[in-house]
Amino acid sequence: MHTQSFKVIAFDADDTLWVNEPYYQETEKQFCELMLPYIEAHALSKELYNTEMQNIPIYGYGIKAFMHSMIETALRVTNKSIDPVVIESIINLGKEMLNKPIVLLEGVEEVLKKLSESKVKMIVATKGDLLDQERKLEKSNLEDYFHHVEIMSEKNEKGYLKLLAHLDIQQEEFLMIGNSIRSDITPVLNIGAYAIHVPYHTTWEHEKNASIEKNEDNFVQVSQLTDVIQVLGYN
Amino acid sequence: MHTQSFKVIAFDADDTLWVNEPYYQETEKQFCELMLPYIEAHALSKELYNTEMQNIPIYGYGIKAFMHSMIETALRVTNKSIDPVVIESIINLGKEMLNKPIVLLEGVEEVLKKLSESKVKMIVATKGDLLDQERKLEKSNLEDYFHHVEIMSEKNEKGYLKLLAHLDIQQEEFLMIGNSIRSDITPVLNIGAYAIHVPYHTTWEHEKNASIEKNEDNFVQVSQLTDVIQVLGYN
Repeated sequence: MHTQSFKVIAFDADDTLWVNEPYYQETEKQFCELMLPYIEAHALSKELYNTEMQNIPIYGYGIKAFMHSMIETALRVTNKSIDPVVIESIINLGKEMLNKPIVLLEGVEEVLKKLSESKVKMIVATKGDLLDQERKLEKSNLEDYFHHVEIMSEKNEKGYLKLLAHLDIQQEEFLMIGNSIRSDITPVLNIGAYAIHVPYHTTWEHEKNASIEKNEDNFVQVSQLTDVIQVLGYN
Repeated sequence: MHTQSFKVIAFDADDTLWVNEPYYQETEKQFCELMLPYIEAHALSKELYNTEMQNIPIYGYGIKAFMHSMIETALRVTNKSIDPVVIESIINLGKEMLNKPIVLLEGVEEVLKKLSESKVKMIVATKGDLLDQERKLEKSNLEDYFHHVEIMSEKNEKGYLKLLAHLDIQQEEFLMIGNSIRSDITPVLNIGAYAIHVPYHTTWEHEKNASIEKNEDNFVQVSQLTDVIQVLGYN
């Protein structure tokens, strides 16, 4: 792989550029604590996950959807006997998530700086809410490295084909870098584009059930983001 | 104005291509009915509007944000004494909105068909949730006319400048067609691009406090969408 052969290099945002999943897990823990008078934590987590899965086709991804899933779960598991004060607390948990600080992952600035020398177009390609992702990008001070933010309603084959059509490029001109095999790697390889996998220590349950054939020519797995520099032909 | 002079013609979606605001007003009416045991309808509408305005910077636009605003208003005006059954009903109102049929406005297909002859790139430029707008576009059967959907977190000068940078075009190569003076016309003219205003009979309160100087060279107001055909030099 070499930067020059790509027209667009896309970075996943959450847990690739900055910390995200730990915030969700922290919020879920607080949600479980709030709900302890009604239901045991492990059972509630399972109910919440089921609600989230049911809601993805309706609401998509992101914090607003997650807030709705928490509220709906709280109503369902209490058979609508929940104290409205708890619902307000759930909303406040969501609003706190939207205001979390941006913590960049290791090596992010080094990699972006290096890759930007080549003048390749770099974009952020992410699920979730546009406003929230734009706000995070602004807070991250990484805005100048990226041409724009691309929100994808679903990171599957269809979603990536749509993205390439939108960018007016061919699949061999596209490289995706991200932490989720399910969302950032497999569908990208399936359409014949390139992908680099940078694992992150915490993964959302939904992203877990995925594996990858590692003998693909257009795929590299690195152990840390800074390895991308070498993979792309820099020293 | 002539189609050939533009590289991109962007259409607003809600209340330009299809019916939207009447659905919000219908839902608000149902919300007020649900809440009648607690508060009189007119006072509640005012409270809801205030919540929405406060929430725009946090949640952005779209139905998920509107649902949150209804729930938060219900909690606030009842001082958290609301029956959780009502909260569930509010959530169901939101889910119904997400499943509303797509009703195309008059002349939409005629105009898109005519403009597509010129091979100009046509896009949808809208606020709101990506997933919801993509779903609406799919249901509308208009997908083939558009290069892609562009979700804007805010339709102001900054948002349009970002859009032009993203599309790699100059302002004089961009034409916006929409029903909202505040969102589709004024900021577009302010950055030196072109705009056509197609009024719609129902307008969201938030979009109302705006007026336009009509002697601009790059602006036309038409009384119905099909007039766009003539404005753009077709017969």
